[in-house]
Amino acid sequence: MINKDDIHIKQKITNIVNDIFATYKENREINHISKNPLPSKDNIIDILKDFFDIIYPGFFSNIHINNIEYYIGNKVSKIYDILSSEIAKSYRYEMFLKNPNVDSCEKCLALCINNGIEATLFLLERIAELRRKLALDVAAAFSGDPSANSTTEVTFSYPTIQAITIYRIANILYNQRIPLIPRMMSEYAHAITGIDIHPGAKIGKSFFIDHGTGVVIGETASIGNNVRMYQGVTLGAFKFPKDEHGNVIRNQKRHPTIEDNVIIYAGSTILGGFTVIGHDSIIGGNVWITKSVEPYSKVTVADLDNSVIIKTIES
Amino acid sequence: MINKDDIHIKQKITNIVNDIFATYKENREINHISKNPLPSKDNIIDILKDFFDIIYPGFFSNIHINNIEYYIGNKVSKIYDILSSEIAKSYRYEMFLKNPNVDSCEKCLALCINNGIEATLFLLERIAELRRKLALDVAAAFSGDPSANSTTEVTFSYPTIQAITIYRIANILYNQRIPLIPRMMSEYAHAITGIDIHPGAKIGKSFFIDHGTGVVIGETASIGNNVRMYQGVTLGAFKFPKDEHGNVIRNQKRHPTIEDNVIIYAGSTILGGFTVIGHDSIIGGNVWITKSVEPYSKVTVADLDNSVIIKTIES
Amino acid sequence: MINKDDIHIKQKITNIVNDIFATYKENREINHISKNPLPSKDNIIDILKDFFDIIYPGFFSNIHINNIEYYIGNKVSKIYDILSSEIAKSYRYEMFLKNPNVDSCEKCLALCINNGIEATLFLLERIAELRRKLALDVAAAFSGDPSANSTTEVTFSYPTIQAITIYRIANILYNQRIPLIPRMMSEYAHAITGIDIHPGAKIGKSFFIDHGTGVVIGETASIGNNVRMYQGVTLGAFKFPKDEHGNVIRNQKRHPTIEDNVIIYAGSTILGGFTVIGHDSIIGGNVWITKSVEPYSKVTVADLDNSVIIKTIES
Amino acid sequence: MINKDDIHIKQKITNIVNDIFATYKENREINHISKNPLPSKDNIIDILKDFFDIIYPGFFSNIHINNIEYYIGNKVSKIYDILSSEIAKSYRYEMFLKNPNVDSCEKCLALCINNGIEATLFLLERIAELRRKLALDVAAAFSGDPSANSTTEVTFSYPTIQAITIYRIANILYNQRIPLIPRMMSEYAHAITGIDIHPGAKIGKSFFIDHGTGVVIGETASIGNNVRMYQGVTLGAFKFPKDEHGNVIRNQKRHPTIEDNVIIYAGSTILGGFTVIGHDSIIGGNVWITKSVEPYSKVTVADLDNSVIIKTIES
Amino acid sequence: MINKDDIHIKQKITNIVNDIFATYKENREINHISKNPLPSKDNIIDILKDFFDIIYPGFFSNIHINNIEYYIGNKVSKIYDILSSEIAKSYRYEMFLKNPNVDSCEKCLALCINNGIEATLFLLERIAELRRKLALDVAAAFSGDPSANSTTEVTFSYPTIQAITIYRIANILYNQRIPLIPRMMSEYAHAITGIDIHPGAKIGKSFFIDHGTGVVIGETASIGNNVRMYQGVTLGAFKFPKDEHGNVIRNQKRHPTIEDNVIIYAGSTILGGFTVIGHDSIIGGNVWITKSVEPYSKVTVADLDNSVIIKTIES
Amino acid sequence: MINKDDIHIKQKITNIVNDIFATYKENREINHISKNPLPSKDNIIDILKDFFDIIYPGFFSNIHINNIEYYIGNKVSKIYDILSSEIAKSYRYEMFLKNPNVDSCEKCLALCINNGIEATLFLLERIAELRRKLALDVAAAFSGDPSANSTTEVTFSYPTIQAITIYRIANILYNQRIPLIPRMMSEYAHAITGIDIHPGAKIGKSFFIDHGTGVVIGETASIGNNVRMYQGVTLGAFKFPKDEHGNVIRNQKRHPTIEDNVIIYAGSTILGGFTVIGHDSIIGGNVWITKSVEPYSKVTVADLDNSVIIKTIES
Repeated sequence: MINKDDIHIKQKITNIVNDIFATYKENREINHISKNPLPSKDNIIDILKDFFDIIYPGFFSNIHINNIEYYIGNKVSKIYDILSSEIAKSYRYEMFLKNPNVDSCEKCLALCINNGIEATLFLLERIAELRRKLALDVAAAFSGDPSANSTTEVTFSYPTIQAITIYRIANILYNQRIPLIPRMMSEYAHAITGIDIHPGAKIGKSFFIDHGTGVVIGETASIGNNVRMYQGVTLGAFKFPKDEHGNVIRNQKRHPTIEDNVIIYAGSTILGGFTVIGHDSIIGGNVWITKSVEPYSKVTVADLDNSVIIKTIES
Repeated sequence: MINKDDIHIKQKITNIVNDIFATYKENREINHISKNPLPSKDNIIDILKDFFDIIYPGFFSNIHINNIEYYIGNKVSKIYDILSSEIAKSYRYEMFLKNPNVDSCEKCLALCINNGIEATLFLLERIAELRRKLALDVAAAFSGDPSANSTTEVTFSYPTIQAITIYRIANILYNQRIPLIPRMMSEYAHAITGIDIHPGAKIGKSFFIDHGTGVVIGETASIGNNVRMYQGVTLGAFKFPKDEHGNVIRNQKRHPTIEDNVIIYAGSTILGGFTVIGHDSIIGGNVWITKSVEPYSKVTVADLDNSVIIKTIES
Repeated sequence: MINKDDIHIKQKITNIVNDIFATYKENREINHISKNPLPSKDNIIDILKDFFDIIYPGFFSNIHINNIEYYIGNKVSKIYDILSSEIAKSYRYEMFLKNPNVDSCEKCLALCINNGIEATLFLLERIAELRRKLALDVAAAFSGDPSANSTTEVTFSYPTIQAITIYRIANILYNQRIPLIPRMMSEYAHAITGIDIHPGAKIGKSFFIDHGTGVVIGETASIGNNVRMYQGVTLGAFKFPKDEHGNVIRNQKRHPTIEDNVIIYAGSTILGGFTVIGHDSIIGGNVWITKSVEPYSKVTVADLDNSVIIKTIES
Repeated sequence: MINKDDIHIKQKITNIVNDIFATYKENREINHISKNPLPSKDNIIDILKDFFDIIYPGFFSNIHINNIEYYIGNKVSKIYDILSSEIAKSYRYEMFLKNPNVDSCEKCLALCINNGIEATLFLLERIAELRRKLALDVAAAFSGDPSANSTTEVTFSYPTIQAITIYRIANILYNQRIPLIPRMMSEYAHAITGIDIHPGAKIGKSFFIDHGTGVVIGETASIGNNVRMYQGVTLGAFKFPKDEHGNVIRNQKRHPTIEDNVIIYAGSTILGGFTVIGHDSIIGGNVWITKSVEPYSKVTVADLDNSVIIKTIES
Repeated sequence: MINKDDIHIKQKITNIVNDIFATYKENREINHISKNPLPSKDNIIDILKDFFDIIYPGFFSNIHINNIEYYIGNKVSKIYDILSSEIAKSYRYEMFLKNPNVDSCEKCLALCINNGIEATLFLLERIAELRRKLALDVAAAFSGDPSANSTTEVTFSYPTIQAITIYRIANILYNQRIPLIPRMMSEYAHAITGIDIHPGAKIGKSFFIDHGTGVVIGETASIGNNVRMYQGVTLGAFKFPKDEHGNVIRNQKRHPTIEDNVIIYAGSTILGGFTVIGHDSIIGGNVWITKSVEPYSKVTVADLDNSVIIKTIES
Repeated sequence: MINKDDIHIKQKITNIVNDIFATYKENREINHISKNPLPSKDNIIDILKDFFDIIYPGFFSNIHINNIEYYIGNKVSKIYDILSSEIAKSYRYEMFLKNPNVDSCEKCLALCINNGIEATLFLLERIAELRRKLALDVAAAFSGDPSANSTTEVTFSYPTIQAITIYRIANILYNQRIPLIPRMMSEYAHAITGIDIHPGAKIGKSFFIDHGTGVVIGETASIGNNVRMYQGVTLGAFKFPKDEHGNVIRNQKRHPTIEDNVIIYAGSTILGGFTVIGHDSIIGGNVWITKSVEPYSKVTVADLDNSVIIKTIES
């Protein structure tokens, strides 16, 4: 029988540690043992909470009713400090990939800090506009869901609001080509809502995803205004073109385009960079679409079996 | 180059804050700047944990083996205090929608507090009964899943238990017409399990959802006893009737009825307020049903293509 | 009107507590009022975080750059202490099912402790090997997803990495027949990623699940090397054979076998213990498969309607 | 032998609880079982920390360098909200002593809230002035202690600064006749510094206590400007006059007066409401004084034995 | 110049760790590297807070007004569980001093657990009585201090109440000869109040220490009823008798006896096991007494110089 | 009557904030609004706790019995990282006093970091030696206090051990001329023990302070081996020489020298840089000494009145 604290165990643990440590020299892609720290997941999540407090005042934290400017101002200052530093880390990480000695390049580090500040200010300057867009998203959810009792209930509880809010923030950073952080944000949204919107997607006004679990919206998808979709909808890639070395080619339009006023019911899958769902169409549930659909179409499972697209105008 | 702390940045941040602040006068649907606080999400989640401790003693927290009454009594008292106050806030919010000066109406506030107490006591008085129902749900999960090793494993780990427990609590509050809180509870369950059961749904005894991610059960769905379903099943609305102004009509039966002893496999979608799945039916995976199905039916994808419903009795 | 603190309420709360307490003698399957504590969910989750710190150094926690051995060694020692004690609890729980007086059987308790130590050491000794496997999984995700910018982004953010890492740990414990804990781990992964991999499944090298929400991989599923799948894929059971008493028969091969180099697109369902997806096959989205498929097959929805399996070799 | 969980222990614990509960009807002075909550110690301490952050910016918390107004404004708003509510509780407690039904007297409660707000604003409006006074106290400590290296070190580390800061805040509240809270503040200072200054004492400018442990300054003590004292000094009462019932008479001048520019060395005790230490005097260590001392005196132990007061002018 | 992460530093840290580790084999009196854990300071402090919640209901924590029994019962159960386990550890430590293999002696461990339970129950059964005594202490403080505004203020804020409450608890454990824990409790009281009462001292009813910083009451001191003392009073040992080997002899009466109704002013020192301060005496401030004093004495500094004890009866 | 949220209050709070903000330009000695952060009090205290864990293994935290090197190594690495950074901040602060633009002087910042590393390594390399000294201090406390039951009790509970441990750490940093931090450490010790030892004092081996509250040991005091003292003892300055401008002269020997084997009883005060207490002397309680005392002296209050020093040799 093993005695919990005997010499044998001590030796085993020492061996285990040495074995693990040895692998730190092998599997470099899953190590980050470097003087260039990665952005902190906890900080990014913390800042997203601050954004919610600013964007939806009074919903998720108590606010001091008098002199709200101070409350907002303090949150904005906090985001400025922390996010600019996290973005600087993400730039530094990117430089490090090309130059392992970035930590001893003063100019490089200063550039990272500067770019972090600029990107953060750029985002902060868009909050007022973001709020206007998000108010439309809330209104879309309220008018699109008969079980919603009020916009307050929607703002407070609907996962679509969490997902679209985080997407709209992450998308601004993505468009500024910030490494790592936009995806950290979108995967946080994914984890808490089951909705996976790539920060690179383009999404118009008054967007609503009901229920939402399992929705996937790919990097190069493009969505118009007044689009509504349900749980389990995928806007995905059809095939990944590869180059002559067999490596996937990145940064191509691989995901579909959804025009204005489209409704896509639960579980449907729309694939391909050239696939366009024409405006004012309705896509039924569980359908699988890899070809474009004209405006005002109404597509159901049966249609597809017959490869027929029936134009209808919803009354 | 920007200097991190220079006067320029100070001015930019001031402008940002002022811009945000200005929008607080515009987009009123996403503000709640009011002396009538909304219920606290953290408190609601905290109380749900206390319910789990009471309902499943010994599973999620250590309990003092001797004199468990004190442990339970203290938890019940805590729920009484906090939940009655949170419900009072939700009533107050509802009054505020009609009367912006509710905070200076002493009688209104007293009424809210009183109603909060009554609703809380009503719920607490149903815990013993709830436990009896939930024990049947655990038994249903155990007998319905060959990979379950014990009822303990089921109670401890299965998302169906988290989802159905929170649903049964939220449903009692929903039936008492408490604003906001039932939905906060169900969205919490949704976030941690991927199972979205509207608190308004009706669900019978011995209910089991295996795996569960992506399940959606709508507000007016009605489910009998001994029903089992799998991940990705939707009990949804088919169409939302609108009134003459184009607004969706709320509070109608929009979701299907599932009778006793039905099994619904993964990814199936059943839609419509008049759709009834007859008792003892089996619905295969990934099917799309918008019409009623007789008792003892067995429906698969192929059936639907042929619009044929084949009656079978499972041996 | 009710006064919040009056004697009437006091009596009501006393009655509520007594009623609840009375049910603790009835519904035994949802009580664990025993001197044999269950494993602690919080401890298990805490330890999984330590595993991530060891396996992916520098990603999820700051590490002291100098003398990393100490950092790793301290984490390993902590896991050793806590996990061996939690596993001992799970063994003790199992013994308790057969012998309610296990807590007064010194020899039994000593055996539990010993087995806890052995199982923990067995797991710890496999971390180095685990790291090698997980590095391949990260590489598979990077090469399989055109939107991935770097292996760092994958490791840092992709839910597939969280799910497969926890699966590979839980699977080692499952193979040692540890009660309760492997499932606690896999349900934790399920909650944060929407991916539900039973710890009993067999999964080969270089495995990648893109997006992942709604994926279900059953207990007796078997997956080869270089398999890629998408959100909403189910590898499930077709029918549960029952014994003469109508109880489900456990511990049979109920879930499919997926051979090497298979791709399964979103929302497909593959069922049955005898169903084999031959190597190098491609399964399209939303298909429903209950029969085996030969190597190099390419299956889409249309194929199934015609019950035809068309062999194709992907160019 | 006792078995840890046996029925006997259960009964013992029940008896213990009943016995304790029975005493809640007896020893009323040490119960506060009432619907009128007492101020919260934790809140008071929390607010004192906010005061330190405002009064000594940059010392005890990080501040956002840009737009400090927001930081300060947010702290002031927080103090306003919490302190006004805690003071309202203390007024409510005081009313409750006279009127046990205060909690059902709407007008009373409104008055408490109002008075809480007024008292809080009164205090907040004095912070700017407080800062000026406290800067003098810091300067006095620096110039009075040869071992001090900088005013920063003094502000950062010296217990005198903690004690005098809290005293000056508590004294403002004491002068407004706030119940309970000033003493809660001063006892917090006492606990962390060993310096016990009653909030009712009067203390002039440029006050410095070196080391400080054991210093006691009584409620009706009066201290001029530029006074310096050392650890263990007591400014106490000599005798407590009692009324005809043998009860101590409260609210009389019972503690000494210390005029400007006095130094009192360690361990000295000065007692009595009519005792005046004349300006520019030096009191040696460990002396015991119950009679007045003229200006420019220098008192040592030896002097007292001979009951002689020798006038000296310090060179 | 040193580079923060270079190989040189790595080596230095390794050397440092090895050097420290080497001393773990030398200085055994300051190591406790053993399988027999010492009691946990945090647990002891935590339990003392629970005692305050039980003894002074409504002062230091919110209580649920309805059904306080549950609140109390739950706290008592918690103390029972934790304190019995901590006392068991302290017994185990004591056994370990005599028998280093105590951890493999099942009977020894069972005895420790049992004794822990008995000692804990013994203490819990005295809480009701303790409350009666402590109510007298509060009353004594109120009537003895003209600056006290109410018994509530005294209970809430006065360090004497913290010190005497912890003393009375620790003393019960001391009398049962519990190792380590009584002293841990009294040093906690010492740290937060500056009052150092050895848990072995005997203290009668209605005891009051005003201000209190620097008070020391030795292990074998004995104090009657209605005694009041001030800050800086010492009841100490005069000389420590040594045995023939020069080791101090422990467990002798070394500290003075203070009879009923004595007042001792600030800074006085009373030494010696045979020194008795007769009842109804008044000891002035800063005096040094090593001989007994008759009842009704009034002692000041001057008296002592002349070795004269003047009897006076205080009017 | 004031309405809690009216416009009037909003204006008042704005005024308050503006007034406070205005003073940030005036009272510069109590502001630290700078890009050069001060060391963090929380970090320093946190690190002191790590030192206690390393120096007294098994007393204040649980340790993993197997492979303690990892535990120690991890703590040492943590101290290395954090303390070197805090010391760098303190150097940077010092430079800032002379050069307000230090934050833009790369070379200065690098120097600060380097010096922080060197000072930290210097300290860490002395831990083994520290442990040897502290073991002697524990032994001295045990043999000097008849009420001590074991060295374990002493190590665990005695404030002297907390005070002397922190002093010995702070003293090493003081001798390396680190700004701010040594005093932060000593004031932390002061706050929790009531013992105020300046980090600049020199203290020999086997030092013991019994009870300790109110002890003050000045910056230039020098204490030999085997010295024991009691609560309330002061080793202070007599007079502060001033320069021609009336400023105190710093950095002179102002505090007494205590030779080997001296005992100083409670409340005594020994003052002056030229005052030497000869070896093997005993100083009685409450005495006041400003002149040197020969070896083997025994001084009591009476002696001093007669200005006589009687030589005695303690038997």
